[in-house]
Amino acid sequence: MPGVLTARVEAVLGAWEAGTFVTRRVEAVEVDFGGIPGDRHYGLTRPAGSREPMYPRGTEIRNRRQLSAVSAEECAEIADLLGLEAVLPEWLGANLLLSGLPGLTRLPAGARLLFPSGAGLVCEGENIPCRHPGEVIAAQYPLHPERHRLPRAFVRAAMGRRGIVLSVERPGRIARGDSVRIVLPPGTRVDPRPA
Amino acid sequence: MPGVLTARVEAVLGAWEAGTFVTRRVEAVEVDFGGIPGDRHYGLTRPAGSREPMYPRGTEIRNRRQLSAVSAEECAEIADLLGLEAVLPEWLGANLLLSGLPGLTRLPAGARLLFPSGAGLVCEGENIPCRHPGEVIAAQYPLHPERHRLPRAFVRAAMGRRGIVLSVERPGRIARGDSVRIVLPPGTRVDPRPA
Repeated sequence: MPGVLTARVEAVLGAWEAGTFVTRRVEAVEVDFGGIPGDRHYGLTRPAGSREPMYPRGTEIRNRRQLSAVSAEECAEIADLLGLEAVLPEWLGANLLLSGLPGLTRLPAGARLLFPSGAGLVCEGENIPCRHPGEVIAAQYPLHPERHRLPRAFVRAAMGRRGIVLSVERPGRIARGDSVRIVLPPGTRVDPRPA
Repeated sequence: MPGVLTARVEAVLGAWEAGTFVTRRVEAVEVDFGGIPGDRHYGLTRPAGSREPMYPRGTEIRNRRQLSAVSAEECAEIADLLGLEAVLPEWLGANLLLSGLPGLTRLPAGARLLFPSGAGLVCEGENIPCRHPGEVIAAQYPLHPERHRLPRAFVRAAMGRRGIVLSVERPGRIARGDSVRIVLPPGTRVDPRPA
């Protein structure tokens, strides 16, 4: 069916501990209009930061970064490029690890991710990589010969592969093993399947 | 500057009367996180309708259609195609009439419209035309020889020209005469200027 893709939820994660963006796995979450309750990125609004240079820092803006998702295929590509065994979604602070949609990062804003519970997320666009996950990755590989270069190398390797940010359109449950139906916005000319 | 376009607010409009989507002009509005207070489309959430067949009708979903905008240039094109003198934003239920951005309808989801007050709107995508504005237009041209065909002809003529829907990212004032700065999402390959 044109305009519809599918994926599978390989992991559901959240950052419930203060002081770190690193996430941990759970079986399922129940999202509401603010995102994942208690998660670091939960909220209907949030303060503008360095990603929103068009607003004064700290201005209250609508939270379009409630959840983030990465694809297993793109994480493997990042790991390959960095010469690492694996790059885990935890280290990227991801809330969802998906498989079956290798070009997740190219999914256009406005695409919907629909879950069996009825929950619906909206893609708010590509997640542009910063250095912080690279620092977490470097800490995981203390014997890596280029360890001190990993944060910067991560940004390069993860560009176009770091997944997407999402907001909640319809509340509901999201669980490991869910099959996800992805509906592209009308008129989409982008094909997020592998090239 | 790449990735930045500009436009001008030619009119600000709202639908404050019950029972009609037709809008009327005001000098300015103050938007909050729900949209234009009192307007027909105001709300943080709204019931799913025919535009969201992926959700059961009436389901509470986040309101991504808080405001709609049309461009003066595209309205003139629609009028030309229909053989009419003019198609006014009121008849389309638009909240903003912009000029200087002829390809407004092709603006990608995630693009930001920034106003001098600091207010910020986010493009949520193309507004797909339906028959209702065509019925309003037909009522405006009672002597038009093809009057009864206008609703269906409007849908064809307005496809790709009916403007966009928006949500509020940062509250503030939007006024007639405002200069609007438009910031495209990172990585945008679409050029919404005239072809």
